[in-house]
Amino acid sequence: MQNVVDFIQANSDRYIGELREFCAIPSVSTKSEHKKDVERCAHWLAEHMRKIGLEHVEVIPTQGHPIIYADWLHAPGKPTTLLYGHYDVQPPEPLELWESPPFELTLRDGDLYARGVVDDKGQVFIHLKALEAFLRNTGRLPVNTKLMIEGEEEVGSENVYKFMEAEKKRLEADALVVSDTSMLGKGIPSVCYGLRGLCYFEVEVQGPAQDLHSGSFGGGVPNPINVLCEMMAKLHDPDGRVAIPGFYNDVRALTKKERQQLRRLPFSEKRFQETTGARKLVGEKGYSTVERIWARPTLDINGLFGGYTGEGAKTVIGSKATAKFSTRLVPNQEPAKITRLVRKHIERLAPPSVKVTFRVHSEGKPWVAPFDHPVVQAGRRALEKGFGKKAVFIREGGSIPLVTTMYEELGKPCVLLGFGLPDENAHAPNERMNLENYLKGILSIAYFYDEVGRTPAPAARAA
Amino acid sequence: MQNVVDFIQANSDRYIGELREFCAIPSVSTKSEHKKDVERCAHWLAEHMRKIGLEHVEVIPTQGHPIIYADWLHAPGKPTTLLYGHYDVQPPEPLELWESPPFELTLRDGDLYARGVVDDKGQVFIHLKALEAFLRNTGRLPVNTKLMIEGEEEVGSENVYKFMEAEKKRLEADALVVSDTSMLGKGIPSVCYGLRGLCYFEVEVQGPAQDLHSGSFGGGVPNPINVLCEMMAKLHDPDGRVAIPGFYNDVRALTKKERQQLRRLPFSEKRFQETTGARKLVGEKGYSTVERIWARPTLDINGLFGGYTGEGAKTVIGSKATAKFSTRLVPNQEPAKITRLVRKHIERLAPPSVKVTFRVHSEGKPWVAPFDHPVVQAGRRALEKGFGKKAVFIREGGSIPLVTTMYEELGKPCVLLGFGLPDENAHAPNERMNLENYLKGILSIAYFYDEVGRTPAPAARAA
Repeated sequence: MQNVVDFIQANSDRYIGELREFCAIPSVSTKSEHKKDVERCAHWLAEHMRKIGLEHVEVIPTQGHPIIYADWLHAPGKPTTLLYGHYDVQPPEPLELWESPPFELTLRDGDLYARGVVDDKGQVFIHLKALEAFLRNTGRLPVNTKLMIEGEEEVGSENVYKFMEAEKKRLEADALVVSDTSMLGKGIPSVCYGLRGLCYFEVEVQGPAQDLHSGSFGGGVPNPINVLCEMMAKLHDPDGRVAIPGFYNDVRALTKKERQQLRRLPFSEKRFQETTGARKLVGEKGYSTVERIWARPTLDINGLFGGYTGEGAKTVIGSKATAKFSTRLVPNQEPAKITRLVRKHIERLAPPSVKVTFRVHSEGKPWVAPFDHPVVQAGRRALEKGFGKKAVFIREGGSIPLVTTMYEELGKPCVLLGFGLPDENAHAPNERMNLENYLKGILSIAYFYDEVGRTPAPAARAA
Repeated sequence: MQNVVDFIQANSDRYIGELREFCAIPSVSTKSEHKKDVERCAHWLAEHMRKIGLEHVEVIPTQGHPIIYADWLHAPGKPTTLLYGHYDVQPPEPLELWESPPFELTLRDGDLYARGVVDDKGQVFIHLKALEAFLRNTGRLPVNTKLMIEGEEEVGSENVYKFMEAEKKRLEADALVVSDTSMLGKGIPSVCYGLRGLCYFEVEVQGPAQDLHSGSFGGGVPNPINVLCEMMAKLHDPDGRVAIPGFYNDVRALTKKERQQLRRLPFSEKRFQETTGARKLVGEKGYSTVERIWARPTLDINGLFGGYTGEGAKTVIGSKATAKFSTRLVPNQEPAKITRLVRKHIERLAPPSVKVTFRVHSEGKPWVAPFDHPVVQAGRRALEKGFGKKAVFIREGGSIPLVTTMYEELGKPCVLLGFGLPDENAHAPNERMNLENYLKGILSIAYFYDEVGRTPAPAARAA
């Protein structure tokens, strides 16, 4: 193991340079204009996998963006891990708020800046570089490993589910590994054992058939923006609770013990507030911030537009107004049931004067794991070796629906080893990844594969 | 007069061709990128005025867009009219909804299509062509006339007020004439005797200092779009009344007689609804549509945007959300007072978790005239001659704040002779003007100047 560790420590400059190439490809999955870039990114990554010695590397076309599969399976009697990650990224807009171009990786004050650097290109690369270190120095890996890296994580992962359904045999493994989450804070290595689910919706309200002069028609016709605001205002009650009837019915309440554990974490509300830059933290009455963002379901409007949005004033009544909004779900909420409740509520709120169109963008389940599982404990030990510090167990407010599906449908344990930080702007301008976390991440993941290799396969299999 | 009428009837093709040139200049006053186009439009129009024989033509620079002044003052003992109009236009967006390019005048099924064709370029041109017909055929005009055509009507007319303040002498007249309104319907020549006022506002809500990942932060921070929707939803009560305390305090109630007159007008709610394309007409409880749009104050959100507004889904909590909204005012509401009430209400609605910025774009007074004034009656007679039909007296939901100022501060009567139609998309894609109304408008306005010339100057002065 020592030569693997030495190799990793000697190659940090190359690790930055290669990540720069990866981040230079604008693999924005939500925009059709970037379809070719997404494909180009998939091929670049596949080529890189071949170069470091992975086998059966394949770029698999889907109805959307391609999936990359690779493996290395020459460790008989050892457990098999399946790495899941994604090479697609969020749109970079608003561009004017970036301090360096979003697709030019830039090192500034100890952080690497680029769209996708932490979500999830840098974290996928952490695994590739750890695997490379073993293959280059020992000619083999301490475990059997499979990799499935997709290009639609930011748009609902629709085609990965189909792929998993069709390729159960090829994807068989003892444990799923994901690095797409954050640490609790700088210097606190963290194992994530819970994720929220996500349902993403879009509502369009149409009033008049075309834009109208607000003087000649104002007061006599339904204004779709007024209507949409009134509808959206009725999604929460004054206590910050989601006001959709039945929304909380299946929520598993936090136990006293869980709440105690959450309180004991080194989580600073003040620091969190500073990270957001908000004047005040708000949320569901009766819960702490950590509880609100990790263990309680929420609803946020992600985008809203209608009428004249340019410079200056235009006296118009717009024909249409649109809201994009999403719910974050916790165990045991069912996305399909939540979608039904939301749709029903929206239909109930829509006045007869307007036409309302309701659309579901994506649905993903929440997940919580038992953290005494051997693979999860191997993750903890690896982080503690890599960072030289005690690790904590945390949950994450974000969503990786695939983790839930793997856990539920394939009966496999998942371990989430994230190397991001909460203030690294994963979906915002100036996305970044701390360089030290990137390099210690590679080390930790090398330790992780080593630790899993010491776990007997049957134990890993005992999910 | 007969040779003037014959001349007008023989020149309709030229009247279309010249209007095409006028409409080809994208004089969009609200967008700074069009500043040069607006200036070019002013010079084109001034040159045209010189060509038809108007005198003292001047393009007067302002802190914003230029004002054009011209006159012809060789009719001693006759009244002096002041024509007010504007050569600036609304933005053409959304471009994809135009069936022909917005700045290429196109004749289709009896209508002329172009941005600004009816609001107000075509209607300004109606006057120029009527004046031209007199000057070409008789070498003189039946009245003294002054023209003030501005380039900032669509953005609040700020600099025209300063100009009027500074140039009282130059603008002295017996009556103001404006053609910037609509007829009640096709084939119904209409004299407009009332306009609503306008206050236009913008509110920006800032939550976090930058966009945040809606998974990692959702439920723990103030979402500015959620907040803005909740604020905007509180601007109306369930009866469709504006819910701003004090908003209705100064509204002059409609008398029984006024309501009777409005009911007798050939106004079809069904036809109006078809024009808008809305499923249902809505508005303030207890009032008819005509009352709502002409004689009751209203509030509409004209534009709203925040978060991700592109294609697909983005799981973001936006940093900011913005609403543009405006109130239409009726006598005796005072814009400055309304602005104070709205500002106070917005401040009261803003929760302490967000930063709210309130901005006033423009303020303009409402206006109602006595319709027995000699100049107004001259207008009625002229329309009846031009269209060969009985004219009606109507009000207009839109705003021309300058009319009010002229009426109040200079003590001069105003006559509003509009040749638009309510469904001509003045502020929307596919703006159009009915060709027959354009040509009959030129004829009517020629009769109007003739009629005013027969009114003794002192009578016209007895406002």
